[in-house]
Amino acid sequence: MSAPALPARPQAGTPPSGLARWLPILGWAPRYDRPAFGADLLAAVIVTLMLIPQSLAYAQLAGLPPQVGLYASIAPLVVYAIFGGSHALSVGPVAVVSLMTAAAIGSLGLADEAARLQAALTLAFVSGVMLTVMGVLRLGFLTSFLSHPVVSGFITASSLLIALSQLKHLLGIRAQGDTLPELLSGLVANVHDTNVPTLLLGAGVVAFLYWVRKRLKPLLLRAGLSARAADTCAKAGPVVAVLGTTALMWAFRLDELGVRKVGDIPAGLPPLTLPSLDPGLLSQLLLPALLISIIGFVESVSVAKTFAAKRRRRIEPDQELVGLGASNLAAAFTGGYPVTGGFSRSVVNFDAGAATPAAGAFTAVGIAVASITLTPMLHFLPQATLAATIVVAILTLVDIDTLRTTWRYSRADFLAVATTLLTTLLAGVEAGVSAGVALTLLTLLWHASRPHMAVVGRVPGTEHYRNIERHRVETHPSLIGLRVDEGLNFMNARQVEDRILALVTAQPAVRNVVLLCSAVNDIDASALETLESIVHRLGDMGVRLHLSEVKGPVMDRLRRSDLPGALGGQVFLSHHEAVTALTAGESAPPSP
Amino acid sequence: MSAPALPARPQAGTPPSGLARWLPILGWAPRYDRPAFGADLLAAVIVTLMLIPQSLAYAQLAGLPPQVGLYASIAPLVVYAIFGGSHALSVGPVAVVSLMTAAAIGSLGLADEAARLQAALTLAFVSGVMLTVMGVLRLGFLTSFLSHPVVSGFITASSLLIALSQLKHLLGIRAQGDTLPELLSGLVANVHDTNVPTLLLGAGVVAFLYWVRKRLKPLLLRAGLSARAADTCAKAGPVVAVLGTTALMWAFRLDELGVRKVGDIPAGLPPLTLPSLDPGLLSQLLLPALLISIIGFVESVSVAKTFAAKRRRRIEPDQELVGLGASNLAAAFTGGYPVTGGFSRSVVNFDAGAATPAAGAFTAVGIAVASITLTPMLHFLPQATLAATIVVAILTLVDIDTLRTTWRYSRADFLAVATTLLTTLLAGVEAGVSAGVALTLLTLLWHASRPHMAVVGRVPGTEHYRNIERHRVETHPSLIGLRVDEGLNFMNARQVEDRILALVTAQPAVRNVVLLCSAVNDIDASALETLESIVHRLGDMGVRLHLSEVKGPVMDRLRRSDLPGALGGQVFLSHHEAVTALTAGESAPPSP
Repeated sequence: MSAPALPARPQAGTPPSGLARWLPILGWAPRYDRPAFGADLLAAVIVTLMLIPQSLAYAQLAGLPPQVGLYASIAPLVVYAIFGGSHALSVGPVAVVSLMTAAAIGSLGLADEAARLQAALTLAFVSGVMLTVMGVLRLGFLTSFLSHPVVSGFITASSLLIALSQLKHLLGIRAQGDTLPELLSGLVANVHDTNVPTLLLGAGVVAFLYWVRKRLKPLLLRAGLSARAADTCAKAGPVVAVLGTTALMWAFRLDELGVRKVGDIPAGLPPLTLPSLDPGLLSQLLLPALLISIIGFVESVSVAKTFAAKRRRRIEPDQELVGLGASNLAAAFTGGYPVTGGFSRSVVNFDAGAATPAAGAFTAVGIAVASITLTPMLHFLPQATLAATIVVAILTLVDIDTLRTTWRYSRADFLAVATTLLTTLLAGVEAGVSAGVALTLLTLLWHASRPHMAVVGRVPGTEHYRNIERHRVETHPSLIGLRVDEGLNFMNARQVEDRILALVTAQPAVRNVVLLCSAVNDIDASALETLESIVHRLGDMGVRLHLSEVKGPVMDRLRRSDLPGALGGQVFLSHHEAVTALTAGESAPPSP
Repeated sequence: MSAPALPARPQAGTPPSGLARWLPILGWAPRYDRPAFGADLLAAVIVTLMLIPQSLAYAQLAGLPPQVGLYASIAPLVVYAIFGGSHALSVGPVAVVSLMTAAAIGSLGLADEAARLQAALTLAFVSGVMLTVMGVLRLGFLTSFLSHPVVSGFITASSLLIALSQLKHLLGIRAQGDTLPELLSGLVANVHDTNVPTLLLGAGVVAFLYWVRKRLKPLLLRAGLSARAADTCAKAGPVVAVLGTTALMWAFRLDELGVRKVGDIPAGLPPLTLPSLDPGLLSQLLLPALLISIIGFVESVSVAKTFAAKRRRRIEPDQELVGLGASNLAAAFTGGYPVTGGFSRSVVNFDAGAATPAAGAFTAVGIAVASITLTPMLHFLPQATLAATIVVAILTLVDIDTLRTTWRYSRADFLAVATTLLTTLLAGVEAGVSAGVALTLLTLLWHASRPHMAVVGRVPGTEHYRNIERHRVETHPSLIGLRVDEGLNFMNARQVEDRILALVTAQPAVRNVVLLCSAVNDIDASALETLESIVHRLGDMGVRLHLSEVKGPVMDRLRRSDLPGALGGQVFLSHHEAVTALTAGESAPPSP
């Protein structure tokens, strides 16, 4: 299998406009040709083989029947091919979102499987609506408040929870739980029920998958295969494990020894389904759907950017919101559950040479064929095999090293990683993401309320004014020059006020305060009002406020307000001019 | 009454330390002397006279029995004198917080008065805990996210709601409601029940109070009184109205004509009470308590700053949180309801010459004496009189003009005023504050995710690099210089990445990108990771990333990370050096 030639960079640099802005398919479909078709088809075959066990496994992780995983890998892929902007992203069930789905549905306390299915597709519906609306309103920037430390801590903790949640399948016992303490106590309480054949089978699959992952590729390379072919073979491990253990189970009737099988999977295409519009259910799903949307989007867009860069393309985050939103709506109406772009499957898709999003649509056809024809054969598939594929795949996401590197780099960021990680482990995924987001917002507010400010003095013999804490400069006892290095807004203006009042109360001789505005790009209405209150309060102290080096656009705007009239002081073109005019006749001692 | 001499500025400029940091009383009490005592006592007498009708009226507004207003004006004042940092602030029941209390308690649907009282003091308790914790953790900065437009819109809308809610007392009818539509429909439905004697009495008091407010002072000035004395007499209007109408009611038994009286007020000191610890009630009160805390604090601290500036002092916002928190806890344990610093009473306190917070403690003694001795006389006080004092006081807070000035100054700020105002009027106080805060946070996130960036080119013949959109500069097709004007963090780093990827995909000849970091004060762990991903993605495109003019502290920190090793490109001391080294041998055409 040779690497297909990359298509020439189409429309690089020309951002899509008009309808193609919202329907990226209009950008590539008109130029779709035979070589691209061949490349996409090949990629689709390989991804399909990988997706079948993955879809079944992730549905099991989400606590849903296996066919739901297949259904979630059909319509959403077709829809993403139409609305999605990435040429390599493969959309479908992924591990972390499946875990979050399990937690969201578990917290509803539904005993009935039909009700759980309905809740799962309603969750996809709510998430799809949220993502689409955010995309259309261009609110993609909102997801920035999920910082890297939070995402990193969350992914590591979720991966550990996922691996732990699969242990019961590997031991053949029953246990429940969404958090580390619950999972551990469930395992400890039931470990005496361990089914030895299940344990042997599960351990065997784990060992096999590790061997495939770590050792097979070097062997194949030495046997003369190309690096790409060796890689693809190594990725086929789970398929081999599924086929092999299904055959074992069938041949030796391991299920009669207590090894649990997947059982009957209804054959056929996905059903048409409708999400529930029960207000009670919808309101309970709002928060989980929001968290799933954000986590799913942040992960997906990062994967998409990685592959886009490899072909010198770019990803429009707001368009990705629409693409993922539409995919989730498709999942909701075809019996699926929340989906997003997955990393491992996208790697396979890209490496296999997918040239356009059509590869995803072809993969959907492959999965559809499988769900019609292969499902009877999956009856004897052991649950332990699926659990083993999840465990081996997920443990690569555990990144404890981040704790060490962030500790070294920044204690504040370390705190964010550690808080998110521990909260997720101890209190579950929703609490973990919420704590991380809350911490991030708090940090943001803290920073936003702390503008850079410096009291400035004159560099002797020049007209330059510099921070008195860093330079040897001259100051006057009757004048304070304060440089503010940021636009003034509702978050930081009060801090400027507090700083000025503190400076003036500490220096009784002060008669003039000059605000050096060279770096002030904007003054909002709150800051304007704060400036007016500074003027009044300084006035009460017998001190006047002046401005210097106000930028043109800022000055234009100030002229539309009452400030120039209320100022009392003057607006100087240069700070030096201000200091000279206001301290005429005084001597200028150097600052201590 | 002559103006008492202001005490010499004590400890101006020396911020309190040690225990005095948390107990401002330790700052002034040791130097407390006879002149200060005299000044405080005089102020206390005047404020007490004003506070008696105000406390009764605001308790009525909050939907609580009148004595609760008196109780909330005793212990909280004493406690604020110990923990509060303002020398002029007068703490107690205020209009807006009383309205918010009415809405919070109303939404609980409690029919029983004892349960309502218990809920009111529990609300004060929760609010007190929140304020104190925020103060101790120095989270005062969090209140900055309540921007001026939001506060302004909220106060105007609440004042209109308060005035409307009092109309029923002026008409002598029964009506319910927390929002404009509810209040209006309640009034319209019951207006036929109007009690004419009540209407005449209420209208008379309103007219009298307006006359006192607008006309009495000029008359007194012409009669030869000093400005301060005339002012104080004018402020005594409500006391005269209370005494006059109570006497009228008693003499002519107006209550037999249907004019409602306040009725029996239990005489005596405030009871010792305990807040409820019922988790259901506490969780229902969490949001209202948070909103009451924030609104109360923002208003109070602004009043405190105004008066502090008049004496060249400053207010420590975190200490104010502790002071108000302690006051609310005191209210909770003495049968009160949420309190904060009020503007009008503080004006009276300051104008009457209060020299220290002891004036507040003396006022508390005054109110305590009144609640023991005067309450029997208030039996015949008409409810319409209290309503009239509220209406006249509150309408001065309505500030429709802000809509006009913000419209002229900034459409975004106008939107914030209008949204908060309309949401408060139409959906109530909690929805109004919440909508305003949500809008403000959204704005903040939007701004935080939009860093200032400029593609730079060389000013011909110099070593200066300027924005290519504003200056005629030279650029190279193989190199992009991007200046980022802000510290890089989790909110804006992705935007930098998107900008760089967009620039590079649009300019196929690019081989080097230089990030000009002269204004980058900090790079957090998220931004660091984004820089690494930029390096990788550019690498995939065959482009290298370089940094120039990195500040010392930022470079020190970067050296503790993996970035320098991963960079691929170089770190240049000056941007000119970077451009010269990276474009050696190329010609430099001017930018189009």
